[in-house]
Amino acid sequence: MPGNTFGKVFRITTFGESHGAAIGAIIDGCPAGLKIDMDFIQNEMARRRPGQSKLVTQRKETDQVEILSGVFEGVTTGTPIGILIKNKDARSKDYSHIADKFRPSHADFTFHEKYGLRDYRGGGRSSARETACRVATGAIAKLFLKNSGIKIHAFVSQVGSIKLEKPFEDLDFSKIENNPIRCPDEQVATEMETLIKRIKKEGNTIGGAITCVVENCPIGLGEPVFDKLHADLAKAIISINACKGFEVGSGFKAPEMLGSAHNDIFENSGENIITKTNNSGGIQGGISNGMPIYFRAAFKPVATIVQSQRSINKFGKEVTVEGKGRHDPCVVPRAVPIVEAMAALVLADHLLRRRLDKI
Amino acid sequence: MPGNTFGKVFRITTFGESHGAAIGAIIDGCPAGLKIDMDFIQNEMARRRPGQSKLVTQRKETDQVEILSGVFEGVTTGTPIGILIKNKDARSKDYSHIADKFRPSHADFTFHEKYGLRDYRGGGRSSARETACRVATGAIAKLFLKNSGIKIHAFVSQVGSIKLEKPFEDLDFSKIENNPIRCPDEQVATEMETLIKRIKKEGNTIGGAITCVVENCPIGLGEPVFDKLHADLAKAIISINACKGFEVGSGFKAPEMLGSAHNDIFENSGENIITKTNNSGGIQGGISNGMPIYFRAAFKPVATIVQSQRSINKFGKEVTVEGKGRHDPCVVPRAVPIVEAMAALVLADHLLRRRLDKI
Amino acid sequence: MPGNTFGKVFRITTFGESHGAAIGAIIDGCPAGLKIDMDFIQNEMARRRPGQSKLVTQRKETDQVEILSGVFEGVTTGTPIGILIKNKDARSKDYSHIADKFRPSHADFTFHEKYGLRDYRGGGRSSARETACRVATGAIAKLFLKNSGIKIHAFVSQVGSIKLEKPFEDLDFSKIENNPIRCPDEQVATEMETLIKRIKKEGNTIGGAITCVVENCPIGLGEPVFDKLHADLAKAIISINACKGFEVGSGFKAPEMLGSAHNDIFENSGENIITKTNNSGGIQGGISNGMPIYFRAAFKPVATIVQSQRSINKFGKEVTVEGKGRHDPCVVPRAVPIVEAMAALVLADHLLRRRLDKI
Amino acid sequence: MPGNTFGKVFRITTFGESHGAAIGAIIDGCPAGLKIDMDFIQNEMARRRPGQSKLVTQRKETDQVEILSGVFEGVTTGTPIGILIKNKDARSKDYSHIADKFRPSHADFTFHEKYGLRDYRGGGRSSARETACRVATGAIAKLFLKNSGIKIHAFVSQVGSIKLEKPFEDLDFSKIENNPIRCPDEQVATEMETLIKRIKKEGNTIGGAITCVVENCPIGLGEPVFDKLHADLAKAIISINACKGFEVGSGFKAPEMLGSAHNDIFENSGENIITKTNNSGGIQGGISNGMPIYFRAAFKPVATIVQSQRSINKFGKEVTVEGKGRHDPCVVPRAVPIVEAMAALVLADHLLRRRLDKI
Repeated sequence: MPGNTFGKVFRITTFGESHGAAIGAIIDGCPAGLKIDMDFIQNEMARRRPGQSKLVTQRKETDQVEILSGVFEGVTTGTPIGILIKNKDARSKDYSHIADKFRPSHADFTFHEKYGLRDYRGGGRSSARETACRVATGAIAKLFLKNSGIKIHAFVSQVGSIKLEKPFEDLDFSKIENNPIRCPDEQVATEMETLIKRIKKEGNTIGGAITCVVENCPIGLGEPVFDKLHADLAKAIISINACKGFEVGSGFKAPEMLGSAHNDIFENSGENIITKTNNSGGIQGGISNGMPIYFRAAFKPVATIVQSQRSINKFGKEVTVEGKGRHDPCVVPRAVPIVEAMAALVLADHLLRRRLDKI
Repeated sequence: MPGNTFGKVFRITTFGESHGAAIGAIIDGCPAGLKIDMDFIQNEMARRRPGQSKLVTQRKETDQVEILSGVFEGVTTGTPIGILIKNKDARSKDYSHIADKFRPSHADFTFHEKYGLRDYRGGGRSSARETACRVATGAIAKLFLKNSGIKIHAFVSQVGSIKLEKPFEDLDFSKIENNPIRCPDEQVATEMETLIKRIKKEGNTIGGAITCVVENCPIGLGEPVFDKLHADLAKAIISINACKGFEVGSGFKAPEMLGSAHNDIFENSGENIITKTNNSGGIQGGISNGMPIYFRAAFKPVATIVQSQRSINKFGKEVTVEGKGRHDPCVVPRAVPIVEAMAALVLADHLLRRRLDKI
Repeated sequence: MPGNTFGKVFRITTFGESHGAAIGAIIDGCPAGLKIDMDFIQNEMARRRPGQSKLVTQRKETDQVEILSGVFEGVTTGTPIGILIKNKDARSKDYSHIADKFRPSHADFTFHEKYGLRDYRGGGRSSARETACRVATGAIAKLFLKNSGIKIHAFVSQVGSIKLEKPFEDLDFSKIENNPIRCPDEQVATEMETLIKRIKKEGNTIGGAITCVVENCPIGLGEPVFDKLHADLAKAIISINACKGFEVGSGFKAPEMLGSAHNDIFENSGENIITKTNNSGGIQGGISNGMPIYFRAAFKPVATIVQSQRSINKFGKEVTVEGKGRHDPCVVPRAVPIVEAMAALVLADHLLRRRLDKI
Repeated sequence: MPGNTFGKVFRITTFGESHGAAIGAIIDGCPAGLKIDMDFIQNEMARRRPGQSKLVTQRKETDQVEILSGVFEGVTTGTPIGILIKNKDARSKDYSHIADKFRPSHADFTFHEKYGLRDYRGGGRSSARETACRVATGAIAKLFLKNSGIKIHAFVSQVGSIKLEKPFEDLDFSKIENNPIRCPDEQVATEMETLIKRIKKEGNTIGGAITCVVENCPIGLGEPVFDKLHADLAKAIISINACKGFEVGSGFKAPEMLGSAHNDIFENSGENIITKTNNSGGIQGGISNGMPIYFRAAFKPVATIVQSQRSINKFGKEVTVEGKGRHDPCVVPRAVPIVEAMAALVLADHLLRRRLDKI
């Protein structure tokens, strides 16, 4: 049943397979009057695009975003925004060898069992190519958020066992795009790059983590019970391919903490109410409190490795699967704009929902 | 805007404040023909109920579940199931001292800012009392899942720095309810209990973690893109009060792993397709693969401590807040049935959605 | 699957059977800060209540509305409003004779086939008793609309072949409640009353129609494509028990009209833009244009008649069904507040959605 | 806010303006395994297409449907079906004269007021061009329904005061497509054609009505309360451009009828339970009862007439509007496939929802 729609008020629905004619999306609920900056959108696409550096898959996609509706003379009209991204460099024959085989830790087996058939070319709908639509729609969400001064910065904070340990307050977000890793600390970025190159040479892949910080989020976003702001962020982020974990604020450090240490003490800064610490991660009772929102997401190593692996085919027979196709040795550098896009979609949704709180 | 509904097909909507006349819920979408075992439901309520042990808040609530509709002669009729749970032991005067004050790391401040007013008594809607409705509706979801043989076991796997390190395969789930901590390892449970008692004596609180395992989940639950099974689980679990993190399968260990180690190799067991390892946590491409599903959730220490804390009132003035009311020193023992309930609601929803996959 | 929720932003979910312990509803999405006038709500209930006159069923229900949550110190808090209405005068034994029989033109047969079982007492969920929840929630929607000056007036415009032919502009809405028929024209009301009394004496029932007028509706409510304002009104009204038709503006007269006659010419009244005629019924392109909205709904004669009828039982055998229970000879007088309530729910929903149109 | 999605389980979301690059849709929720017959789809498009006869607008659109995803080797895969229809013959300059003017009884004024700006070319989003997406997605719904033997036949039953009075049981649906009017009675069709030609010559337009019959609908489709089958049909049909009224079964004749005449007496035909009469229109208590479903929809005359009309511009000044562009003198012949498509979408949705009724 329908599972390709995200958001309640600022709402996207996406379609498309890795090797079909095109992928695309509809944004329904973007308010009228928003200026659409196509260069900005295309730049966001470039951050996710394959082939952007030696560290990522070399599939060649320009990922040109075509806006087919909902924008007139450069401004949104309040009607649905139709988005199209053509697939150009699909090498489907690379995948004929897995038409009947299930690759380990891919979605081949579960899709086959769920639907009784599958478009095996390039992983079909389960390919991370689908995330291009998240970035395109997320870029429009970002344009909407910019109007309210909200800024979103994601960066790579871990590759393998190499971690960026500094608190986000000590980082210079303007440096994130200075290196292909998207880690704002130059030295840590270099270590990560070296590690990824080595892993790639071995035909292997490695996991990583991304941290995301939202600055200038107004107070009051999020709903008390099920649609807590961090619950919606959790779903948004964990729905990204390869994501295995999500934590907000103190996260998995919280279990070890005492209440007296974890509680964020309110203070009046003179201008507004702030908290001395921010273990809450900018969200209390599911609602933003005006402090920076930050969360962290864990990503597994890419399942496609250039090694032969034992597996099973659709007849239940044991087979060997060879790693072919063009793939990333580590997913996190390209996942940075995807994480930002999903965060932007959640925030745009709740920023609009906020208008409905009072009579 | 509406944020008090959870699920798409097996769908609950809840209402109620901590100190109002009653709390309650409507289940819409429970199929007809399900036998309702009231003893089972009431037993689930007892697992969450305050006052069940010395380790938890002493508020006295019988949490009697009244089913007002949707059940006829003990069997569901397909119409909405109206559920009512009266509040009996609300001591609202305990809260008059915080009518104008914002308690640190509670939802007082954000509710006030969001809505312009709030029912401050016992935390109002943001109180964990709301979770009684999750357990009541989750109990009916569990009855539905039992019909398909699906079993859900949650247990406390961490309190402070005391961790249950054994893999879940080595645990005896039948021992979970043997101690008030709800930890299946007797010795670790005793250590946790000692710790909580000490923390309580200090007027403090401590965090913890819960692990949840789903056995016998059929293949094919979950949707490819946004409604991935683990994404819906993430939202469900993180929406529980005090939850700060969620990880599935390899979770936050995944970033350090190599693809060659992380990949779960398929095998034909003779009876069915299994995987040798289970880093996927029973879910691949967002869809259950028939292996056990397991995830872990981090909970922060309860914000109410029996210590005086500096804070702010609604006029922006600095004030002192004293910890009153009846509260838990550690949330995880009572959160175990809540985690199970939310997992059950997600699984019931996707088990029904599964019927829609093929023509 | 869930079909007991109505509205997207101002959203109600209802539960309850005719002869269960209680019926009720949750309003999710009512903004904070709305004063709740319990007398007004109860007065709306009285307009729908059985036993209000000789013309309607004599079942004795006080229809006392209990608000269990979402209101604090007389004002909405933004959290869900839980509503409970106890069933007091359920005479279930009146219905034991139809436990296995299907009454003609009732929902007995279709419920049985759909769910495999049914609560036959008083029609169970398909009873018009369910509309009490529509009136209770609609009353709160009306309170919200009053803040914006929107007024809704429904009245009986037809009983059998007796029609109120005057255009609504010539009617005095303050006279609607002056007679038990709820027809603002005294003379026509008397004719209708005489007819209904005669039909009742014959053990028969008769159909009717209701016209509804919305005054002071702001411009801009409704969405361009599927959620056109009149499409949502159509669904709302036709979902009321016994309703067989809906027309807005020129309605079923439109097929005979020429474009040159049907077009509503715009004029600048000096204060605002109006139209010379109002064949559009106040809605153009699915969006309110500031003119009065009006629509008309057709209701069939009540299916329960005090005559014996041939029918079928659940074993497929031919049987005779006797009309028992307490029923209305004509549904429209009591349906007036129900039509208003549904219109109010649609308008409250779209009045809130209107806030989302522009950046 | 989002209003461009229709359906809950078989769900479409559409986009596109009359004179943009393309229009399109996503179907989310079409089950896997459905054979897609492109010829059938294209034939349905041809029935709605402009330029198909002298009676309709001469805009030249091939309305070629491109399926971009969700279909692999001719069969649906369970993933979203992306549909694209390019606009070819948009003559936007025909519309520059109304950039600032509001045409009478069009959506120009309400769009402008709602969104603060509008794509005025060809009516933008409010153009009936949008219905091409309804027909394309409805065609796929029809393919799904065919698998269950469900057949949908709509036809023109009124143009101006010329009515097709025969009951639908006496009509030969195979003759519907024999004439450009889409009326199965040859003689009545000829009268209607003559009338439309005369009206067209006068630069005027005329209204009409469409009747729709669903044969072989299984028992049990529709939900008891808000999502009654006929309520969903009402919304579906009334959301079509120019539709002003909807009636099911006895419809607007019901108000004049007695219960004893209106009740449909059940009989056991030997094979199944039928009703002697069918005033219910195949739906009882909101649920299909296995008898033919039939309903009728009223359409107003097209608002664009080739006459000069007084109106207002966006500055509130009085202006004269000349009828330009290419338009239909009567909307009903082309609306026949649109009505069928909307009915098919509702039935496909409820046919799938039916799977969720019982454990």
